[in-house]
Order: sequence, then structure tokens, then C-alpha cells
Amino acid sequence: MTGQVTSGPPVDLRSDTVTAPTPAMREAMARAEVGDDVYGEDPTVRRLEERVAALFGHEAALFCPTGSMANVLAVRTVVGVGEELLCEASAHVARAELGAHAAYTGLTMRTWSAPGGRVDLPAIDALFAPDLGPYFVPTRAIAVENTHNFAGGAVVDLAELQALRAYADARGVRVHLDGARIWNAHVATGVPLDAYGAVADVAAVCLSKGLGAPVGSLVVGSADAVAETRVWRKRMGGGMRQVGVLAAAGLHALDHHVERLADDHAHARVLAEAWGTDPGEVATNIVVREVPDAPRYVARLRAAGVLASAVGARTVRLVTHLDVDRAAVDRAAAVLAALPLDPDPRPEAVEVRPEDVTPATE
Amino acid sequence: MTGQVTSGPPVDLRSDTVTAPTPAMREAMARAEVGDDVYGEDPTVRRLEERVAALFGHEAALFCPTGSMANVLAVRTVVGVGEELLCEASAHVARAELGAHAAYTGLTMRTWSAPGGRVDLPAIDALFAPDLGPYFVPTRAIAVENTHNFAGGAVVDLAELQALRAYADARGVRVHLDGARIWNAHVATGVPLDAYGAVADVAAVCLSKGLGAPVGSLVVGSADAVAETRVWRKRMGGGMRQVGVLAAAGLHALDHHVERLADDHAHARVLAEAWGTDPGEVATNIVVREVPDAPRYVARLRAAGVLASAVGARTVRLVTHLDVDRAAVDRAAAVLAALPLDPDPRPEAVEVRPEDVTPATE
Amino acid sequence: MTGQVTSGPPVDLRSDTVTAPTPAMREAMARAEVGDDVYGEDPTVRRLEERVAALFGHEAALFCPTGSMANVLAVRTVVGVGEELLCEASAHVARAELGAHAAYTGLTMRTWSAPGGRVDLPAIDALFAPDLGPYFVPTRAIAVENTHNFAGGAVVDLAELQALRAYADARGVRVHLDGARIWNAHVATGVPLDAYGAVADVAAVCLSKGLGAPVGSLVVGSADAVAETRVWRKRMGGGMRQVGVLAAAGLHALDHHVERLADDHAHARVLAEAWGTDPGEVATNIVVREVPDAPRYVARLRAAGVLASAVGARTVRLVTHLDVDRAAVDRAAAVLAALPLDPDPRPEAVEVRPEDVTPATE
Amino acid sequence: MTGQVTSGPPVDLRSDTVTAPTPAMREAMARAEVGDDVYGEDPTVRRLEERVAALFGHEAALFCPTGSMANVLAVRTVVGVGEELLCEASAHVARAELGAHAAYTGLTMRTWSAPGGRVDLPAIDALFAPDLGPYFVPTRAIAVENTHNFAGGAVVDLAELQALRAYADARGVRVHLDGARIWNAHVATGVPLDAYGAVADVAAVCLSKGLGAPVGSLVVGSADAVAETRVWRKRMGGGMRQVGVLAAAGLHALDHHVERLADDHAHARVLAEAWGTDPGEVATNIVVREVPDAPRYVARLRAAGVLASAVGARTVRLVTHLDVDRAAVDRAAAVLAALPLDPDPRPEAVEVRPEDVTPATE
Repeated sequence: MTGQVTSGPPVDLRSDTVTAPTPAMREAMARAEVGDDVYGEDPTVRRLEERVAALFGHEAALFCPTGSMANVLAVRTVVGVGEELLCEASAHVARAELGAHAAYTGLTMRTWSAPGGRVDLPAIDALFAPDLGPYFVPTRAIAVENTHNFAGGAVVDLAELQALRAYADARGVRVHLDGARIWNAHVATGVPLDAYGAVADVAAVCLSKGLGAPVGSLVVGSADAVAETRVWRKRMGGGMRQVGVLAAAGLHALDHHVERLADDHAHARVLAEAWGTDPGEVATNIVVREVPDAPRYVARLRAAGVLASAVGARTVRLVTHLDVDRAAVDRAAAVLAALPLDPDPRPEAVEVRPEDVTPATE
Repeated sequence: MTGQVTSGPPVDLRSDTVTAPTPAMREAMARAEVGDDVYGEDPTVRRLEERVAALFGHEAALFCPTGSMANVLAVRTVVGVGEELLCEASAHVARAELGAHAAYTGLTMRTWSAPGGRVDLPAIDALFAPDLGPYFVPTRAIAVENTHNFAGGAVVDLAELQALRAYADARGVRVHLDGARIWNAHVATGVPLDAYGAVADVAAVCLSKGLGAPVGSLVVGSADAVAETRVWRKRMGGGMRQVGVLAAAGLHALDHHVERLADDHAHARVLAEAWGTDPGEVATNIVVREVPDAPRYVARLRAAGVLASAVGARTVRLVTHLDVDRAAVDRAAAVLAALPLDPDPRPEAVEVRPEDVTPATE
Repeated sequence: MTGQVTSGPPVDLRSDTVTAPTPAMREAMARAEVGDDVYGEDPTVRRLEERVAALFGHEAALFCPTGSMANVLAVRTVVGVGEELLCEASAHVARAELGAHAAYTGLTMRTWSAPGGRVDLPAIDALFAPDLGPYFVPTRAIAVENTHNFAGGAVVDLAELQALRAYADARGVRVHLDGARIWNAHVATGVPLDAYGAVADVAAVCLSKGLGAPVGSLVVGSADAVAETRVWRKRMGGGMRQVGVLAAAGLHALDHHVERLADDHAHARVLAEAWGTDPGEVATNIVVREVPDAPRYVARLRAAGVLASAVGARTVRLVTHLDVDRAAVDRAAAVLAALPLDPDPRPEAVEVRPEDVTPATE
Repeated sequence: MTGQVTSGPPVDLRSDTVTAPTPAMREAMARAEVGDDVYGEDPTVRRLEERVAALFGHEAALFCPTGSMANVLAVRTVVGVGEELLCEASAHVARAELGAHAAYTGLTMRTWSAPGGRVDLPAIDALFAPDLGPYFVPTRAIAVENTHNFAGGAVVDLAELQALRAYADARGVRVHLDGARIWNAHVATGVPLDAYGAVADVAAVCLSKGLGAPVGSLVVGSADAVAETRVWRKRMGGGMRQVGVLAAAGLHALDHHVERLADDHAHARVLAEAWGTDPGEVATNIVVREVPDAPRYVARLRAAGVLASAVGARTVRLVTHLDVDRAAVDRAAAVLAALPLDPDPRPEAVEVRPEDVTPATE
């Protein structure tokens, strides 16, 4: 067996960001009532913002063009210039937003390292910097990512989050939830979205990953924080106009694409099994594993018809999503089972392209 | 006569950003072929970028969520941290982008003041700072805005732009074109778009103003500058995913909404005449005039069924666009003709709302 | 006559920053009582800060390593990220602080142009941006520089400053005084320092220019503004330790070097006369004049034993100070009178060195 | 026994930054030959810069007003906007520079946690982010602090540093040495300064801590990096004038105050023994220990005549230095031995002042 996908287009497991809108979603977009959202007059955006705020039990929400902007703007509401955010070392906010929090907000980070992106309270407590006056950087907020992308889609346990909430309250600091894939956590665990919302002062949630909308994330938080963020969103260049066409996709996704994430999770377990990793460790729609040379392995997967991402020098990631059905998963699984992990010794046998190493970002 | 619009909804002349996509544009959006544009895989975005680059005679273009982000990113390619952009004092980059060029790029500005936003070369030359070594801020670029929003949609004369180009070349500095409404200049004058493109090293052009697309602007420039800008766009949170649905609106607008700008220009002259200003001074789709108290006058216009913008303490602006047809223009003209410019002396007679003073921004 | 200084070392008229501490000043420095100023425990610094605050009629002052840092920190107290400072186009804050206000505070500037750096209220009023809500950059402060360095040491008229004060109060904006050479204005006009202080909300004053101290400037303002600035000074890296040795030089300069500025002013008039410019236009210790090629002219002056600065492509500046006595002034005057302004036609006749164009910064 | 210092002024063990210049140092300062250092003309500064560069085996050095500025400027030469510095979680650059690296350079940090501030290569390797293209933050440099302030003056082992050097070279990243107290490491271990210099691409070293100069730190690095840093130093407001008076103190300190650091180290061991901690763990001039309530314990020490610092909620720090002789050390030791660590149960018994918690910064 050659490990070649036997027929059809490549199976794209690089990220759940690659999904195209479904015909029904396009239809919803085409019918969307719109207005100028910079003036706060787009009724579809308003509906989406109100609905998402309510889902998480917060007062308000704000539509943003990307998850990165939503994270930057959300964190900005709780950490100022020269102040500190604590996060896990492989968090998206630290690794995959191009340093925007420092470059644009002027905040600084310190990190703890935990398998699964876990909330390691003793490690956090060792880092925690009380406000000792105007000489030390004070910790203002702690970020958690749920599910945790580079930890392989791990779900952060609700009890851990609640303990973090209590810890933060006791010290007067805030919690930011990077909820780009909070929907996956919700579906995987049955924990209500507002229970996740309750542990966070501010959050960013994304419509264009597992939910399959083409574009869009939201900042979720208090009415005051969101009102202030509206101005900073404009300053960052995120104040779009008749963006209801995108918000309509988000509303459609909330109606139709949340529960089906369970399929993606099942598909991920199939891939893990074929890959020889423990399906029991696959919490949601992401599978990661270590290989000797990630970029070269990804290039060889690509040659075999499976698109994956190198998210580290030795780490490969697969992500299931709306546009990969069971048949495609089975085709990819066959390739994963057949292709050796160690690099092909012939240098000429594989060409590593930029897209083999770079795309793992959302 | 009371100056009340006699029937129908308010005539919205606040800005040409308020247009909703037409049915045909929505149809184009619904059919758009899409991909993940962060990976460079959205074919509709690519087509739009290539087409816009070609229209202006440049190598490349980059789709951005807003005109503000496009301006910030475009200027960044020619002015660095601690360096200087010269622009006219009422330029959009100076007045209406919330200081993003300083806050996010770290560049500084000095300004000349010229009626009509004109390119006043002697004034520019008096400002021009040669690179005298590491103690003075060097001028790196000069920005022009065409048409010039807060100068009432004035068209900057091509000969002036060409003289600026020669001036800049002689001094080794760059020219940035804020072409948010360059299409209006093109239609008003017949000057080809690439003639405007030829005077600029880098430009930002907008699809969501006169062209009527719901969202989107593009940075236009060299292949190198655009490649670099792609990374900075992601850092700013502007790297969207299946954004071809928006790009399709832009392509449709280029096909169908450029030449019709002439109608907006004619409508603006009708309004100017009714307002008692000189229609010969109305170059495109914007009419501005001084009044004793702009916010209160705008509030009174609103009460009479005409939405306008206060763009200064004493300056009112009207903008015609795709969603205001001749009948609506005539209704607004009747109001303008009837309503006195001086404020109603009764303080209780009018309530100034935030939207009377704030919306004039695009 | 060759225009060569006949004997002795070069006459250094590049800037009044070049002065070395006098023996008496060194003696005061050597005796200074000191402490750790980061802890607020340096008694000499405290005395200097209290004295300077009192001189200008303000509550508090803060010692800074340089005038540039003092200006950046002072302006920061009245203009925030994305907000606007208005200043004259040749102001030191705009031209000679390497864009630090944008790069480090994130504020933006617009400029008026006025001979003598004058406070042109109609021009300011044309620029003035009221706070129209969260779409426009609001003007938060107006900066004046007195004396005005690049306007040739011009004194800004007290009545003009008072009119500016009234204008600013009426519009709810603040006034920043760049008083790097406010002592020269005081001596030239007899206006008390606290009269200048009264027109400003915040100021930066310098000890290391005309006053002859080796290092140091102060932010002057309200107790609250100064307390906040102390933290930002540390963030910028300006929180020094036993800096009383420098503060002692400043106190000595206040005791002994203020009134003698009149000598520098007389010397400047001597130079102007020799240079063929109008001594009546020399207000303080700076003389500027236009020449065909400033860097080359400065190089030729240097070859003749007179050090000057090119502060623009065609602008040469001479500055008198504590270390240039009447005899030296006469020697320089002889050179100025003899050297033709037009460039030597022989390219090999003069070598332009970096120091001919760069040093004009303080 | 009451734990009260029996006579004399308080023993100030808050930091080695509190030292006043000695009479001989003042004499050197008074005699210093000076010039305008912004023009590069201060001969004493030049001598100091050349000497320090040579001591560390680097090409060039640059005098800065503070250690914080030196660290910010040094790191800037190796890490750009949106890029990453790795450092130990209690490093001064992360904890005690008010976030300046993010706020002013726009760089971001991730941290490993190691007792003694050790170079934990496996932890570093787990953090290390290769340059995977324009979506991830790349690691550009790794910072080490030697001696490590908040790790109790721990010396980082030379072999560890050399292993880090090899690691960094293999991955194409740079090493920054925060050498604020590198002199203490040198004296404690006998490792030559240039051996420490050899492991770093760029370093910041301080004159105003153990060496006893009143003010001053230096960036050490390549000629190119230092030339570029000179401009950025001016942008940050650190370009001082006749700063040779301070550089003379630094030269004097290099001549006379390096070897005597051994006394401070011995004194620190005396304090540790009196405090009941292990003197064998005291590597240099700093002793830290955990107490139940650091601010309150420090307040009680102060009441007993010993000044210390709370550098964390439960961490107290003592620092020996030039101005604390053996007799003072003995007096402090007596207090430490007598005062219980647990808080006085009577709330009224002690007043915590700001200086009890804040001063631990240098």
C-alpha cells in the first residue's frame, strides 16, 4: 500500500478555517437585512451581537473581522500598557497573533507551560504579580483558551476554570477566555455556553472555525467594555459597513452548525486511531502528534493527498470540520495508517512548500 | 413651507458608506467561489486584487476590511517608526482614522492647509525635512487624498499630482494616494485610473463608498510592499477567511457601479443649488457648507427627514450615493431650500443626538 | 581677507548645549547631598524640583535626563493614544524628537506654519478639532515653544500666549509649553517666569542649554500629572539614582546663569550684524539665515574655525552661550563677515562631514 | 531582646542602588573632562564606553541613563516588533521594567520558570518557536540575567551559559545578557568578564548598583548594533549632554569598586546566617526569603531600624553594598535574628508604608 488517497481531491485537514459557506448559509447571507454597522445600524449584526452575548450570559458583544482582532481587543479591556497578561505558553494569543498584543496594546506576557493547555493554578500563582506599586509589572488578567488549539483541541475542565475564576476574584485580576473553539468544548462536554461565559470577564469567540461561517469573531463582555472596544475596533481598522451579510452567516451557523461538531469530534478519533495515537486523548476536532521532521512529513502527506499543518518543528496537526465528511476521513485515515512517520531518506523525494509549515494559524 | 420631507423614509445623505448591496450584487456574492484567504486561496479575492492592481498600473493589491486599515497599512510601507508623513490638514488619514498611524505604526505627521485639499507645493516644500541624519525627523512620504472628503469631494488636479510626483522623486520621498473615492475623481474628470496610479508609490482604494460594495478596501503597490503588508494585515487582525463573498461584491461594483457615479455628481449639484451654494464648486458627490452651529443644524435637518453629517463645529456635509435616487434628491432639496441656516432660537426645539455629529467618517 | 579665525580653538556656535560646567558649578556638584531618586530620596533633586515648580507657579516638577524626554512625558499628560497635539510646523516636538511622541505615546500631530513660531490663532482655530465623538481625532492640546529654536530663538509674545490660554480654556483643551529656552525669553523680555507658567497646563524646561548645566530638564505641572509622570519616566528608562549631582548643577545654574543670558543675546546681535542680517530681528541667543547650500556652507565655516549647524537644507544656525565670550564672538564675526554665502564652486574645496548637518538638536 | 538596632541610622539593605558616591569618586567626577555626548564629543564617556566594550570582548558600548533603558535598547537590537524574547519568569526584563519592551519596542515574551533563574535548556527548547513563516511569533532571542536579582543574586553557571550559546547558535537566535550585576558574578566566581561577554550577542551592564556609581548603565554589543542604538537612545530621551561627569564615576568604580564586591558577598552570608537561611545558598550580595506577609514584615524591620524590600507578596529581599560596612551588617544581623517572621498579630502594631513594598527595583 502506498498511502496515496485513491481518488478525489485532497482531504484538507489543515484547519477548520478552510470551510466554505454551505448553500443554505449563502442563502441566509443573500437575504440578510443590512445597514451601516459603523453607525450601529446593521440589524443583522445587532441580532448576532445580542444573541452571542446572551449565549454567554454577558451584557454585550461586538462583531470583529477576525479572531486575532477579537482577542487583541478583548484583552485590551482588561490589561493596559505596560501591564501583564498570564497565559499558557502555547496559547494562540502568545504564539499565533504576531505579537499584536505587545505591538498594538503595549501589554506584556508571562507564561506557564502545561500539557493540554491546562489551568495550572500553582504555576499561575507562582507567576502572579500583585500590584506592589509603580516599579513592578502587575498581573491584570489571566487568559485561558478553550478548546486549546496547539494542545490538540484539548478541553479545559470546567472545574479548573471555576477554580481559576475564584483565584482571580481573590486577587482582583480578570479572566480572558479565548473561545475561538468554545463551541467544540460545549458540544464535547455538554457544559452550557453560559457556564463557560461565567468564568470569564471578557471573551473572544469565533464563527469561522468549526461553525463554518466565512468570516467573523466577537468580543463578549460588559456593556461598558464593549462600548469602549467599538472605538478601538475602529482605530484598528475593524469597523466594517454592511457587514450583516457576514453576521447572517454567523446566525445561520449558530442555528445549524453547533450540534454537528460532534461529527467532527468522531472523525478526529478515527484519524487518531489510524495514526496510531490514542483516540481517547482526542477531545474535540484536533489531533496532534510528534514526528521527526514536521515540515517534511507534512509535505509527504500532501503528496499523498492529505493536507495537514506543521505547528512546530516536530508537531503535526490535523483538524476535522464541516467540509470533511466521513468518506474523506476514511480516505485520509488510510493514508495516515500507511505513511511512515520517519522522513523519506531521499532528499529529492519531497519538496517542502511554504504552505506545509505556515498555514496552521487561526 | 415647513421644510419637511413630505413623504417616505428619511433621505440619508450622511455618507456614501450607507449603501446596501443591490439584488444583483447580492446574487454575485451568493455565487462567489471562495477559499481561505489567509492561505492565499480565495480565487475571488485573488481576481479582485489582480484586477484592482491592474486598473492602477501597479503590481499587486491586498484586500482589507476597511479603508482605515488600508490607509494605515499602505502608509506603513513607506514611512517607518519615528519618521514623517506630510499631508493636508483636513486629510482623512490625519482627522478620521483615530490616530492609528501614530498609535500602531509610530509615525508622525506634519500638515499643510489648503482649500480643496490641494497639493500646495510651496507649502509642502516649506515643510519638507531632508534626511539630515539621526537627530531630525525625516520626511518619508507625502499623502494626497483624491477626491478629498472633508474638502467637499474636491478633485485634485492631475497636473498637480504629477508635479508632486516629480517633486517627490527629486527628493527621494514617496507618495501615498488615499483613493477612497478615486473612482469619483476618475468619473468626474475622465482621467484614467492608471494615470492616478502612476503618481503614487502606494495607494488605498475603497469599494464600500461610492461603489456600493458592503465592505472592503485595497492596498495597491509593488509586489514586495504588498507581500510585506499581508503579514502586517494579519498582525492588525485583518486577515479574514472566505472573504471572496465580499470580494465578489467589489468585482460586481467595478463592473456596474463606476460609471453611474456621474448620477451622484449630478445629484450633488442639485442639492448645492437648493442649498444656495455654488453648484460649480461641487466636483463630485459631496457638498459641504458652513453654518452657525453644525450639530444643531444637522439635528433640525434630521427632524425634517434629511440625514446629514456635522464634520466640524460649523461644517455640514451631504453625500449622494447609489441608494439616493433623483426623487429622493428632490425631496431633500426641498428641505434644504426651506430650512433656515441659523439655529432655531428655542433651545427646546431640537435635540442633538450623537448620530448628528459623529457619523461623518469613512 | 580669508575669513579664517586667526588664532585659538574653533568658536563653537553649534548649540548652547555644548557648554561645559564651570568650576563653580563642578564644586556645587561635588558637594551635592544625594539619595536614591527612584525612591524619591534625593534631597538635591527634591529641592530643584520644588524650586522650578515654584518659579513657574505650578505645583510640582520632575527631573528628566533630557529635554526630549521631558517634552514627551509632559505632552503625554495632556494628550492620549490616538489623540492630537497641534503645534507650529518647525517646533522641536515635531521636528527634533525623532517622532517619539508618536512612537512612544501614540499621539498624532497637525501643524500650522508661522514665521517666528508665532501663535497664529486663526490658523490654530482652523485646525482645531472639537471632540465630535468616537470617529474623529480630537485636539487635546496645543504646544508652544518659547523661545522658538528653529525660528531663530524668537520670543513668543506674552499677549499671544495669554490669548492662546483663553482660546484653549474656551475649548476645553490644554497648553503645553516647550520651555527649553524659556529663560532666554524671560531675560530678553523681563516677563516673569510664572507669567509664562500661567499660560501653560504643563511645561518642559531645560537646564543644559543656555543655563549651562551638563544634563537635565524638568516637567512642570500639577501634582497629579507629575506623580503619574514619575511612573512613565521609569517606564521610559529615565528613573536615575543619585542624580542630585546633576540637580546641584541645575540649582547652581538657576543662581548664577540666568541673568547672564543677556550677554549671549548681545553676542548674537553682534554675529547677526557681521553676517549681514538684521540684529533687530535677533531676539535671544540664536541667529539663523538662509544660504544656498547649508551643509556646504557649514563645512566651509568649520574649515574657517567657526562651528555652526545646518538645521535645514538651506538654513544655517548660530547659537551663543556661556562658553563663547566676547573675544570669541568677535573672531567668529570676522569669519562671518568675510566668507561668501554662495558655495565654493570647486567640489573638492570642502568636505561636508556628518557633524555639519546633524548636530542641531537639543 | 527587642530586635531594635541599638544605635545609629537605619541600615539600608533595600538595594545596592542606594549608594552615594564616595569622596574619591566625587573628586573624579569633579575633574572629569567633558563634551557634548549627543555629538559624540565627550571624551570621558568615550573612554568609559571603549573600556567597558573591551572588558566584555565586544566592539562597542553605549552609556545610558538607567539599566532599564539599557535593557530595552539592547534587546531591541535583536528582537523586533511582534517578535519574541524568551526569559526566565522572574527576570528583571519581565518583572521590573514596567513592560517597556512591549510598550516601546512592541516585542512579546514567553517565560520559563527555574529556581535561581537558571538556564533550563529543556524548558527553553520546549518554548522555542522556529521561524515557521508569517503566522507564528518567532523566537528571536533568549535573555539571561546574571546575577539574577529576584532569584536572590544567584550566579548563572558559565557552563550553562555556554550551552545556551551553542543552543542559540544552532537555532539562529541571539542571546541577551542582563548583566546589571555581572560584576558580582565575576567576583564571586572568578570567571573573566569577557567569558561572560562571549556568551552574549548583546548585553546591558550597570554602574550604579554594586559598583556604586550614582547613575549609568551601558549597552554592549557590535559596532553596528551600538550605532543604531545611539539613535534609538535619543528617540527614547536618553541622549544626555556633558555626561562625562557621570562616566567619570563609572571609570572610578571600575578601578576601585569591583574587587571589593567580595566584602558585600561576605556580608550577605552573615545576614543569611542571622536570618536562619543557608549561607551556602547566598551566591553574591542578595539574600531573599519567604515570610508569611512580606510588606508587613518589611514594615516591622523598618521600625527596628533595618530597611528591606518586599519583592513579592511573601518574598523579602536584603541587598548588601558599598555603604553598609561590617558594623552595620552586624547591627542588622542582630535585628534579623531577633524579629519573628510571623506577623505581629496586632494590626495597629505596624504601619505598612509604600516604601516597604515598592523600592525593590533597579
